[in-house]
Amino acid sequence: MLLKHFYDDNLAQASYLVGCQATGEAVVIDPAREIEPYIKEANENGLTINGALETHIHADFVSGGREMAERLGAVLYVSDEGDDDWKYENIDHLPHQLLKDGDEVKVGNVTIGVLHTPGHTPESLSFTLKDGGTDNAMGVFTGDFLFVGDVGRPDLLDKAAGAEGTAEKGGQQMFESLQKFSELPDYLQIWPGHGAGSACGKSLGAVPQSTLGYEKKENWVFSHTDADEFVKELTDGQPAPPVYFAEMKKVNKSGAEIVRDLNDPKRIDNPKELEEAIDNGVQVLDTRDSARFAKNHVKGTFNIPINKSFANWAGWLVDYDRDLYILTDEKDHHEVLTALRSIGIDNVTHYMDATQAVTMSDRTEHYHNVTPEESVSMIENGEAKVLDVRSEEEYEEAHIEGAAHIYLGELPDKIDEVPADRPLVVQCGSGVRSAIAASVLQANGITDIRNMDGGFGLWKKQVNKLIEA
Amino acid sequence: MLLKHFYDDNLAQASYLVGCQATGEAVVIDPAREIEPYIKEANENGLTINGALETHIHADFVSGGREMAERLGAVLYVSDEGDDDWKYENIDHLPHQLLKDGDEVKVGNVTIGVLHTPGHTPESLSFTLKDGGTDNAMGVFTGDFLFVGDVGRPDLLDKAAGAEGTAEKGGQQMFESLQKFSELPDYLQIWPGHGAGSACGKSLGAVPQSTLGYEKKENWVFSHTDADEFVKELTDGQPAPPVYFAEMKKVNKSGAEIVRDLNDPKRIDNPKELEEAIDNGVQVLDTRDSARFAKNHVKGTFNIPINKSFANWAGWLVDYDRDLYILTDEKDHHEVLTALRSIGIDNVTHYMDATQAVTMSDRTEHYHNVTPEESVSMIENGEAKVLDVRSEEEYEEAHIEGAAHIYLGELPDKIDEVPADRPLVVQCGSGVRSAIAASVLQANGITDIRNMDGGFGLWKKQVNKLIEA
Amino acid sequence: MLLKHFYDDNLAQASYLVGCQATGEAVVIDPAREIEPYIKEANENGLTINGALETHIHADFVSGGREMAERLGAVLYVSDEGDDDWKYENIDHLPHQLLKDGDEVKVGNVTIGVLHTPGHTPESLSFTLKDGGTDNAMGVFTGDFLFVGDVGRPDLLDKAAGAEGTAEKGGQQMFESLQKFSELPDYLQIWPGHGAGSACGKSLGAVPQSTLGYEKKENWVFSHTDADEFVKELTDGQPAPPVYFAEMKKVNKSGAEIVRDLNDPKRIDNPKELEEAIDNGVQVLDTRDSARFAKNHVKGTFNIPINKSFANWAGWLVDYDRDLYILTDEKDHHEVLTALRSIGIDNVTHYMDATQAVTMSDRTEHYHNVTPEESVSMIENGEAKVLDVRSEEEYEEAHIEGAAHIYLGELPDKIDEVPADRPLVVQCGSGVRSAIAASVLQANGITDIRNMDGGFGLWKKQVNKLIEA
Amino acid sequence: MLLKHFYDDNLAQASYLVGCQATGEAVVIDPAREIEPYIKEANENGLTINGALETHIHADFVSGGREMAERLGAVLYVSDEGDDDWKYENIDHLPHQLLKDGDEVKVGNVTIGVLHTPGHTPESLSFTLKDGGTDNAMGVFTGDFLFVGDVGRPDLLDKAAGAEGTAEKGGQQMFESLQKFSELPDYLQIWPGHGAGSACGKSLGAVPQSTLGYEKKENWVFSHTDADEFVKELTDGQPAPPVYFAEMKKVNKSGAEIVRDLNDPKRIDNPKELEEAIDNGVQVLDTRDSARFAKNHVKGTFNIPINKSFANWAGWLVDYDRDLYILTDEKDHHEVLTALRSIGIDNVTHYMDATQAVTMSDRTEHYHNVTPEESVSMIENGEAKVLDVRSEEEYEEAHIEGAAHIYLGELPDKIDEVPADRPLVVQCGSGVRSAIAASVLQANGITDIRNMDGGFGLWKKQVNKLIEA
Repeated sequence: MLLKHFYDDNLAQASYLVGCQATGEAVVIDPAREIEPYIKEANENGLTINGALETHIHADFVSGGREMAERLGAVLYVSDEGDDDWKYENIDHLPHQLLKDGDEVKVGNVTIGVLHTPGHTPESLSFTLKDGGTDNAMGVFTGDFLFVGDVGRPDLLDKAAGAEGTAEKGGQQMFESLQKFSELPDYLQIWPGHGAGSACGKSLGAVPQSTLGYEKKENWVFSHTDADEFVKELTDGQPAPPVYFAEMKKVNKSGAEIVRDLNDPKRIDNPKELEEAIDNGVQVLDTRDSARFAKNHVKGTFNIPINKSFANWAGWLVDYDRDLYILTDEKDHHEVLTALRSIGIDNVTHYMDATQAVTMSDRTEHYHNVTPEESVSMIENGEAKVLDVRSEEEYEEAHIEGAAHIYLGELPDKIDEVPADRPLVVQCGSGVRSAIAASVLQANGITDIRNMDGGFGLWKKQVNKLIEA
Repeated sequence: MLLKHFYDDNLAQASYLVGCQATGEAVVIDPAREIEPYIKEANENGLTINGALETHIHADFVSGGREMAERLGAVLYVSDEGDDDWKYENIDHLPHQLLKDGDEVKVGNVTIGVLHTPGHTPESLSFTLKDGGTDNAMGVFTGDFLFVGDVGRPDLLDKAAGAEGTAEKGGQQMFESLQKFSELPDYLQIWPGHGAGSACGKSLGAVPQSTLGYEKKENWVFSHTDADEFVKELTDGQPAPPVYFAEMKKVNKSGAEIVRDLNDPKRIDNPKELEEAIDNGVQVLDTRDSARFAKNHVKGTFNIPINKSFANWAGWLVDYDRDLYILTDEKDHHEVLTALRSIGIDNVTHYMDATQAVTMSDRTEHYHNVTPEESVSMIENGEAKVLDVRSEEEYEEAHIEGAAHIYLGELPDKIDEVPADRPLVVQCGSGVRSAIAASVLQANGITDIRNMDGGFGLWKKQVNKLIEA
Repeated sequence: MLLKHFYDDNLAQASYLVGCQATGEAVVIDPAREIEPYIKEANENGLTINGALETHIHADFVSGGREMAERLGAVLYVSDEGDDDWKYENIDHLPHQLLKDGDEVKVGNVTIGVLHTPGHTPESLSFTLKDGGTDNAMGVFTGDFLFVGDVGRPDLLDKAAGAEGTAEKGGQQMFESLQKFSELPDYLQIWPGHGAGSACGKSLGAVPQSTLGYEKKENWVFSHTDADEFVKELTDGQPAPPVYFAEMKKVNKSGAEIVRDLNDPKRIDNPKELEEAIDNGVQVLDTRDSARFAKNHVKGTFNIPINKSFANWAGWLVDYDRDLYILTDEKDHHEVLTALRSIGIDNVTHYMDATQAVTMSDRTEHYHNVTPEESVSMIENGEAKVLDVRSEEEYEEAHIEGAAHIYLGELPDKIDEVPADRPLVVQCGSGVRSAIAASVLQANGITDIRNMDGGFGLWKKQVNKLIEA
Repeated sequence: MLLKHFYDDNLAQASYLVGCQATGEAVVIDPAREIEPYIKEANENGLTINGALETHIHADFVSGGREMAERLGAVLYVSDEGDDDWKYENIDHLPHQLLKDGDEVKVGNVTIGVLHTPGHTPESLSFTLKDGGTDNAMGVFTGDFLFVGDVGRPDLLDKAAGAEGTAEKGGQQMFESLQKFSELPDYLQIWPGHGAGSACGKSLGAVPQSTLGYEKKENWVFSHTDADEFVKELTDGQPAPPVYFAEMKKVNKSGAEIVRDLNDPKRIDNPKELEEAIDNGVQVLDTRDSARFAKNHVKGTFNIPINKSFANWAGWLVDYDRDLYILTDEKDHHEVLTALRSIGIDNVTHYMDATQAVTMSDRTEHYHNVTPEESVSMIENGEAKVLDVRSEEEYEEAHIEGAAHIYLGELPDKIDEVPADRPLVVQCGSGVRSAIAASVLQANGITDIRNMDGGFGLWKKQVNKLIEA
């Protein structure tokens, strides 16, 4: 048996290749939309992927399951549990198999068993893994059911899609699923669908996997004996889920376009073409380092630097319904495109080399960074206003005296609420999110801004005038 | 003034960026279809390309002139000389200007003068280059009129497109153009459209440029005082032009598709999809090193390794009217695609990683290399037959006793003439062209073959049984 | 807590980064010699590496522990168990700490506990991992003590270094260590030092980690209740360990040179310099694909293609005591050098671009591949002799009628035993190892050889004349 | 005959590969220190480099002539003209040949003729190039004698090395060389040693080559009939030559170290090691983009971004006698090292990844950019002082009211003259040179500074309070 972990840092999402070397067969659990890495790994081990298993309808990324079915002829294994709202659609033309609790999938000599573990979503499955020649499972792929130190959120759709009341019901199901699951042997490995940094759970640790026995001892979710109390703790204080989650759920249910059928964005070499697009309301995203963007960028563009948080902020800030142009360094082009597609942003129609755009365009602008020390006097004497773009939870814990608050993710929708009478000093925890915010503000015509470099963390050290909760 | 040479090794084709730093304007003379390198160079020098000049309707590569007009808004400057058969078509929607002998094009302070120099083709122009503040030209862009040590062929279309009688007439025009041209000052630099290795001239030297005075002394074309003798020498012994030249001429006259509007080939990961395509008559080109191809390749594919001769052999061997799939190493993918497109092969619909294809497919085959020494006895005792795939000229000069001859470029059309009664030893000058030939033979079902490694050159050293002219 | 797995495919070796995000501290368990990847990962997570822990004195790769101590100022944590033969030497000038059973190492809020688990070697340690705020360990780093499905070999040094009698004693210790270890909780994760393909264990599975409970059920080592029987099974039928293991053990005990103090190999551009080196007995290793090497290579060079088996075969075939020159493709240069250094081959004094070497050198040669079908008649009629270079175990199970046997790893030492009266067909399982063997034979002056492409596997399908055990 | 131009953008330096395909021989005229590109090109054309010709003892870059002699066994052809001060030293151990006016060097069938053309330096040679089978030269390699539109400076050593009076004498020799040279045929190509941007001539055009006839008409140097007037114009208004020129002259006369014998810089991973080096007076050069440097850099480091001007500013600002550490992005490491070595900066002993250094170090600082508009009030009301770092010629033509002036190249030596009573706004033409200056000032402890983004150019547009000459 071969088991190989894949982890997408941009999505904090885990997927798994399971293969049987004796027969050359392999399947992937919860594949991401870019399927080439799985194929490459399988090939290098003499395996052919002939199945893709999904634990549930994902809300945070576009699944690669249909991609595998279409392109590789792999069988798509999906849940047949849950009610009618939770059925996969448009899969009849694909090789597929619906799974119910108790079913088994054979991968050569390896056996994958199906457990129905609702809670995160009603149709959620977990998959046990059993090597050939033994009756003992080695571990369980738990998807967004059980994480290291937490469980999946039952309230995602409640909040992201306005499906009222699902959180409470999901919480109850989760409690039951946990009760049942806790009867399995302690030695089982737990292979979860997410790691630290995912918005699918509250407090995921940066440890890739666990065991059932350990989780039963250490995970707070197993400490509850009362369902209602459990549900209360579970649904309490969950951060706002990214707005794109509702979109993802729809896409994964009914099927995203196959990546290789998407048109690649067209290259722009003429800055006029870029400027016209901006005038016509096209979104233009510059993915350079924020220092370079701050110093010089094309008016009307906004900035999300390509790093681990890129997909998250793109999911919040990009409008899925309008064309998107991207300005990148050549070396980053593929990564940017892949990250956008990983969360279903398929409307990237054009791109331009970022340096070329900035060099050739006549319409450029900049913003300055200031440290807390450098900005304190203008803030205190009322020349400038602070705009805090951290989460509501962070803001409430403590914030700079007099700071206004709008969460970065909601900035495009709340642009009218931005204080407009004075220059702004945009601020977050360290200066990273506020740099994105500064670019969004400028792209929306609010130009007299500064980014607080070092953010709240440095303010505390250098100035320390705070309102604490 | 800025003058920058560009040279495409695959096409032996020269193009030139001319700019005026004072005004930031630039034009390109005879741009290749991939225009990004010109844009990059212009940007790095603070210039914007606003014009593209064509010396004539090219027959050996797809011009980038229309690409620049469409994508950059550059003015397309083309010849208005020659008769109706030689007019550019479908340019009305583009910014353009027709040029006649004596016209001038301003590039900031720089002046480009137009000379009508027919011969290679009736509409052929040459362009003089004059810096600001002087009446003296610095040199002349001669296109396919005057090369270093030769002139352009007047017979290309005669042979490639069956336009009978054009060679003689073109030769006469060439003689007159030369007479007129020779009156210009000796010190003029000559910037030709091609270097060594191009099929557009007979014996081009590997020196990138010359001067008029030097050519008048050393180039054979200026040694003639009698037009008829000149034409005779000019049209005598010209090698067969690649078959794709006729296609190119058409494409450049009426306009190729804009590259960025082409669909990129789709990735294949499933070997079945590849095998089905082969069964359905799709052409599949493997661009790996011939040693790797020889050892193992998918049945039905043929091999042109990606190197300086790639575009030439692709032009000969690829059928422009059928879909083409390519099997490449990832690192070569862009170069292969660009080279194919540079000669108008736009029907690349799919690609697959070459190693993946070979590893995953069940239908593979190989061929062996043999040295002359290793093969001589089987050739002598009649067990095997030699097939010489060099040019007719080379074959006639000297060849291996008993060798059959079919020129590599014509092999696909003459597959029925391949000796079929015995195993074949395929041979060229060094083993490079015959490796391509071996792959073409196998793809056409002739499988009992060996490639003579070292070719005729090594045969002469190791065996030396020859028929000499 | 952060836990990150690293896996070196070349060595089938696992190492682990453990960090505490709250304090920014991190350590690495069993670091490989190239420490940059750990540093990069730590930085990306805001951590600084201040410790390196070694489970034991490794025999199969050069440890990066001292590298970290020298270059990062990290504390080197090593075993103080075992007798005097198994003490780390030359560590006094480094920040270090000796570990005994029961000790603890703090990594911020994380605690690493020390267990003495002798057997593989007398000083072998295992490390438990405990997150902050809990008394329960999450798992154990077992080094070469407990693997997935197996335990470490106690006989490595017996065989590789001629330390007679250690295997038996080690086996007994292993039995006791297992008894003690089995009392720990079932839910503990087992993080071993090696995966499938390592020569440190007999039958390692391709699953990266396990749990104690699962191993107790499924690992054969826990099924024994009698120590002697266990030892018998453990030491029986272990394959020959690579010859370089003895060298490694010495190096890791007394300290390899710090990589950044090594001189980088000098570039050669003149083929004469290469040829002279060969004449003077220097080893020259060509790391290209075997198809390209077979077709053409410099006389006197041998070939190990750069892939997952590279380090293993280099360990067997390179003489540690003589200078080594390498011929590589530019893109592979760093990987080749790193792989050689990972097993302590520090005597790479020069390198040359492989293609340049082959193109420029006058002294080249080749060998041919043949399929079983193509070679069977010459083998049957005695024109050629088969040389089987698989392991003794494989040969004994079944081999081609009449085949001689020398294990590839031992070929350089047994070159005199190679049958010399007839042309050789070199054969292994698939043609991969025999290609290396063919190159070694040629480099040793045995030139009339062919490589059996497809090897024993294809022979069985195409010919099937065998001697079976 | 093959002729191939090479051009080093960093040095604005031209070199030339000349080969004879018939015999496979090649030589290089004025090779740069990094010789791999020549070897690669030669190999690709089936040529072997067996000679290196130097037009003169270069002052602006380290010649690759000795490198070729040592590494390739190529014959080093150098001038035997000029007096004893201008003889090459330490060449006896190398294959070499001294050249005098009238000598010839054979490259297969190609003939290179030697002309003594003193002026730039007393020993300067030019080389004529004659193809096989003709008596007519095709062109002349003129080194630093005749450029496109100018001639070489006779005053370099006068100024850079304090060799008084050589400029006048050199000017007279230059006049005579030009007189003699002008008698050669007009059609000769002129292949100069430098292009636009080199400090070796006053006003070089951005056209790579010329002809003698054209230069006689257009180059000012041929317009003089009176030697004294010529010399006056020639030596008048030459900009200050870089300080490193004197060093280069020495190095090229007596021989730089062979690059492949240099130790590669050692990698640093521990920021402490970097900080200690800074405390101990080591120079630390950060080659990132100035926007990234401005935002955050390690205290005590200075910044020259890696681009076309890098070598020039490194030559001015790096102290050749002290160790140098470099902080680079990984992708730029090779280019930075090569550029430094190209001008003889061989004392790069250590390097660190720039991002890692900035992330891990506790000692970081920043500076801000301001536009002219943003800075005008603080300048006018005396809160800040402008420091103009352009050349003396630029400053004298026009400068900002009240601006102090120190040329960037001389800033390290004149750090005591920097106005210290007020915050500084550092300014150049566009903000590029002043960014370097800002970093030099900070590294020297002057920390209260701003860089004027857009520089003098933007000031003229936005503010326009100037003192004009």
